Amino acid sequence: MSLGLDACPFIINLYRKRMNGIAYYQTADNKNSAAATLEKSIFLLCYNAREIIQKEVIKVKILIVGASGTIGTAVAKELEKKHEIIRAGRNGADVQVDLQSTDSIKDMYEKIGKVDAVINASGGASFAPVTELTPELNEVAISSKLKGQVNLVLLGIDHVNDGGSFTLTTGVMMDDPIPKGVSAAMANGGVKAFVKASAIEMPRGIRINNVSPNVLQESLEKYGDFFPGFEAVPSSRVSLAYKKSVEGKQTGQTYEVY
Amino acid sequence: MSLGLDACPFIINLYRKRMNGIAYYQTADNKNSAAATLEKSIFLLCYNAREIIQKEVIKVKILIVGASGTIGTAVAKELEKKHEIIRAGRNGADVQVDLQSTDSIKDMYEKIGKVDAVINASGGASFAPVTELTPELNEVAISSKLKGQVNLVLLGIDHVNDGGSFTLTTGVMMDDPIPKGVSAAMANGGVKAFVKASAIEMPRGIRINNVSPNVLQESLEKYGDFFPGFEAVPSSRVSLAYKKSVEGKQTGQTYEVY
Repeated sequence: MSLGLDACPFIINLYRKRMNGIAYYQTADNKNSAAATLEKSIFLLCYNAREIIQKEVIKVKILIVGASGTIGTAVAKELEKKHEIIRAGRNGADVQVDLQSTDSIKDMYEKIGKVDAVINASGGASFAPVTELTPELNEVAISSKLKGQVNLVLLGIDHVNDGGSFTLTTGVMMDDPIPKGVSAAMANGGVKAFVKASAIEMPRGIRINNVSPNVLQESLEKYGDFFPGFEAVPSSRVSLAYKKSVEGKQTGQTYEVY
Repeated sequence: MSLGLDACPFIINLYRKRMNGIAYYQTADNKNSAAATLEKSIFLLCYNAREIIQKEVIKVKILIVGASGTIGTAVAKELEKKHEIIRAGRNGADVQVDLQSTDSIKDMYEKIGKVDAVINASGGASFAPVTELTPELNEVAISSKLKGQVNLVLLGIDHVNDGGSFTLTTGVMMDDPIPKGVSAAMANGGVKAFVKASAIEMPRGIRINNVSPNVLQESLEKYGDFFPGFEAVPSSRVSLAYKKSVEGKQTGQTYEVY
């Protein structure tokens, strides 16, 4: 914001005071005096400039990984109202990425340049009871949900603008365990702790949070049986937590949407 | 416990009632009557049998991985007072194991046979600020502190007796972040969530908990600078949490020794 535009509020206040004064002798037809016209012009100029600045300050460039999933779609829909969205995913997105490959993450960041916010709404895990979970099955959650998200941050810090943010995704099963959910819970717990611990060291005012959603109403048909008795939440409600993370000022938080 | 020994309390009570009766006419020298001598013998037999049974019920076979470390040594010292301890570690222990290798974990379990409790007091992590933590450096905590502990459980369930337990180790930095502690915090958070989620599915009454210690008084010289302002705890206090996990009945818990 330039010094000149910073002066706008002062000029506008001055204009308003004058206008009040002018109102007293409107009948005297002074309203259209050369002086008042000039002030009105200054006001409009300043007002328009402020509008532009406000939009520039608020409108940010957001990378959403997993933008085609249920959460990703809802988040993109909410945030594209006033921000620029870059959609990333394994296919059919603006930019391709596989979070299980550090090379793929690096390539993605090289392609998109600097962004203000990075959101991840992707991540897989094997669903199996602990008695049937093998180290190999558990590796899916380790490499996707845990390392995928952590590496998106570790490799992305230099590509996020000052004051930008990371928003990762965890889930209710880490707090409220479900049968067969142990591997996903493990990864979620790791991501939550990573977010809390990394927040204290993020450079240049970069913030980091995670959203922990309950099972989604939109996913009940597919995943409902895994969450007996859970009160599903609409993805539109979950998307608000991502908005809070991106547009707010908090860091190190877990936004539970339960 | 056999039916015959279950009858002991009844026999002993009977004996005591008779003894009280006998006491009334001690002066009559009936104390040494054949009947009383027989009852006294029955009492002593039963009493000794109960002592043996009590010891057998409480004394369990405990595997401690990382038994030569600061925590492992303290835990072994506390638990060997009345239990059988098998010490495991990378070298110089009763049995060798490298938790970063699933084959090594499997070999260890094959060698030691069934145990009643498995305790892990080992696990490494790179200490680096998030801006310097690479995916490669972060891999140490993933493969050691996180996967090492998780695989010790996944591969060990069939080697733990009914009603046995697993006790893993996390740490204060997941709740109270320290500079350079993000990788360790991540692994700890994953283990904590794994414990909570797996507890609901453990078969045959097997329990699982984790102990999250503050920095140890014994480690202050080595690690004190990483924990500015933290109130160090003695390892003897930390070892009590492991005892609570092994000898108690709770499951899915994180015992914070802060």
